[in-house]
Amino acid sequence: MADVLHVGIAGLGNVGTGVVKLLQQNADLISRRAGRPIVATAVSARDRSRNRGVSLDGIDWVDDAAELATRDNVDVVVELIGGSDGPALTLARRTLAAGKPFVTANKAMLAHHGLELAEAAEKAGLPLKYEAAVAGGIPVIKGVSEGAAANLITRVYGLMNGTCNYILSRMEAERLDFATVLADAQALGFAEADPSFDIDGIDTAHKLSILAALAFGARIDFASVACTGIRAIASADIAQAAALGFRIKLVGLAEVQDGALFQRVHPALVPLDHPVATTMGSLNAVVLEGDFVGRLFFQGRGAGEGPTASAVVADLIDIARSDVRPPFVMPVADLEALPRASAGDRRGRYYLRLNVADRAGVLAELTAALRDTGVSIESLVQRGTSADGGAMVVMVTHEAREEDVLASLDRMAASPSVVGQPVMMHILDF
Amino acid sequence: MADVLHVGIAGLGNVGTGVVKLLQQNADLISRRAGRPIVATAVSARDRSRNRGVSLDGIDWVDDAAELATRDNVDVVVELIGGSDGPALTLARRTLAAGKPFVTANKAMLAHHGLELAEAAEKAGLPLKYEAAVAGGIPVIKGVSEGAAANLITRVYGLMNGTCNYILSRMEAERLDFATVLADAQALGFAEADPSFDIDGIDTAHKLSILAALAFGARIDFASVACTGIRAIASADIAQAAALGFRIKLVGLAEVQDGALFQRVHPALVPLDHPVATTMGSLNAVVLEGDFVGRLFFQGRGAGEGPTASAVVADLIDIARSDVRPPFVMPVADLEALPRASAGDRRGRYYLRLNVADRAGVLAELTAALRDTGVSIESLVQRGTSADGGAMVVMVTHEAREEDVLASLDRMAASPSVVGQPVMMHILDF
Repeated sequence: MADVLHVGIAGLGNVGTGVVKLLQQNADLISRRAGRPIVATAVSARDRSRNRGVSLDGIDWVDDAAELATRDNVDVVVELIGGSDGPALTLARRTLAAGKPFVTANKAMLAHHGLELAEAAEKAGLPLKYEAAVAGGIPVIKGVSEGAAANLITRVYGLMNGTCNYILSRMEAERLDFATVLADAQALGFAEADPSFDIDGIDTAHKLSILAALAFGARIDFASVACTGIRAIASADIAQAAALGFRIKLVGLAEVQDGALFQRVHPALVPLDHPVATTMGSLNAVVLEGDFVGRLFFQGRGAGEGPTASAVVADLIDIARSDVRPPFVMPVADLEALPRASAGDRRGRYYLRLNVADRAGVLAELTAALRDTGVSIESLVQRGTSADGGAMVVMVTHEAREEDVLASLDRMAASPSVVGQPVMMHILDF
Repeated sequence: MADVLHVGIAGLGNVGTGVVKLLQQNADLISRRAGRPIVATAVSARDRSRNRGVSLDGIDWVDDAAELATRDNVDVVVELIGGSDGPALTLARRTLAAGKPFVTANKAMLAHHGLELAEAAEKAGLPLKYEAAVAGGIPVIKGVSEGAAANLITRVYGLMNGTCNYILSRMEAERLDFATVLADAQALGFAEADPSFDIDGIDTAHKLSILAALAFGARIDFASVACTGIRAIASADIAQAAALGFRIKLVGLAEVQDGALFQRVHPALVPLDHPVATTMGSLNAVVLEGDFVGRLFFQGRGAGEGPTASAVVADLIDIARSDVRPPFVMPVADLEALPRASAGDRRGRYYLRLNVADRAGVLAELTAALRDTGVSIESLVQRGTSADGGAMVVMVTHEAREEDVLASLDRMAASPSVVGQPVMMHILDF
């Protein structure tokens, strides 16, 4: 049996605690699969006194996380502090500078500084691994970068935020509105006190930008991810979508078309027989499309102590096995800086929902707006909704250019008959 | 850029041709992801004159496949001949003896000789890789052996035969009986002229025994896989299962319980909201359950030129990256020879279907048989089926011991009121 791999862990929240627990509980198994024992030897966290339900006996406690990078009894550093900059980034830089492999679950840091860190790792011939950063316990980083490595990948998409999927699933199952479910999710600890990173799609955008870089051999371009969250979704939308054969999901989608990179996070209508539509509760799912393999679908737990620890320790096992590859499959210098694709030229079907005053001529006004912008309608439902005499109009367009649909929506929104902001959602037709 | 990896390919059927095509079409991409070019330099196949729609210019043609093992311009051999013994096995042994990495899609050979070959590979420090052998293009070998490597895996199961899944999907969609769909599938080339390896579950059993070894750190034990195929499934079973909220699938299932290995291939009733139930047509799916990661689900194309080639070339990229691990995750010497678990002690719910003479007292007879063996009934449907006055009785039991259900079935089958062989299927309750 080869030498022990000594692990320093920065951050002892749920995930850090889970990693310590996993390394202890499955020590035997891990050592047989890794070819050598993997042992936590040092940890760093803010609160030393908290009872975490796991034994830290024999593990050094380090006050300054950055110290893990240079500590003698640490061969590899696991960063679970979070945050795109600050102590996490300092630790990453110092660890690689000290010539040690680095493992992280930090999607925000990778989305912003992944290329810098990957370059440092490459130059030093060190592993920089981050399976836990995207879709938690699901081995999608490995799936995309190794499992599908032979393929020209043209599209990658999925549900990468368990909080959003949980909220949308409960809105549907219990016919509740967004605010009610969010408040309940917060009370239960399934949503953060400040939930905006999750529900506004930023967390999904971080993960998507990492996946897109891997899938397309492109430089990470977080800034170009167009992002719409789930705040505007009404339970009426969910019911209407269901009646039309769809389920609303917060989808992160990246494609390369004509050499340009398209990245978007948005609520989308997914056909009920699509595996993404049947991914419920806090589960995550990732789909990739390759030219030889076709569609590959991965589903599992995207967050939480156990699943995230599982991904972190899988990375440690790869490191113990001396599997060193460029962090983004190919050297950073070979990654392409792809131009941003125009959304306006995209073609697809759209779901439109408008709240309108229930009076004569409204429908004529709406349909004229569509006609004048060249958008044709596949189906239309009008339904009385409120005690004040308002009505709801839901339309599904035939395939149309996105720019034209937006133009028609602008016209409709300007009408005095339309109350509030119209909602437009994409239909996932693949 | 490091040295070219020269590949010798034995077998130029669909998959072999796909590998040549993939290495050519995505040569640039593959070389960037692998860190070096991967080039087919020699091939061997029976029919030299056949037009395969791919250029073999510059590739040496070798008459005796075994010669690839020792050829100077071959660094790694890909075996796509098939068959558990014969030329495939000879080639595998010679390749490893010659000190070269070996890649195969041959589940039958691995199920029978995998441990011998793995030992030879280990001793020589060589990769022996077989991603394409289980579930085609889906990276489940990597998922189980690397992605989930930190977990104690307690169960692995799935749909690993596209022909069976295609037949069952069409029986449901078109309300056709088994024989009709099989004949049509044969005419369309979706089923072999001799379909027994597929429809009797043997192909699934090969794959299952490989997955189980990987998942549980156990020695491959193909001989202990209990195997029931799909021949006995009537379209009435499919309709009844649907009415009860299930879909019938040919499931390969392996578990470790109390240190004993349970392996079975059998048609099972899968709840309609289970991702395995929504895996239709020729798609494959694999589920694993780990103690930290929970349930992981993989779905994609399990066969065909493109998907299988994708898996083969993924293995070649790993080899180009010098990723050498024991073929069954841990050294063969460490794999446990697990005792075979008794099926009789298993508890579960069961679907029973009997064709009976439609006369007074039949139901009393059947329900007495169940009572006398201690099996209680959750639901029962009797339906007139045939012009000759026969009826069909379908029962779902409460959770019961398998042995008791079999005993009750024996009693029922002995009754003169029961026509033909009763059908018993397991309900997948996880």
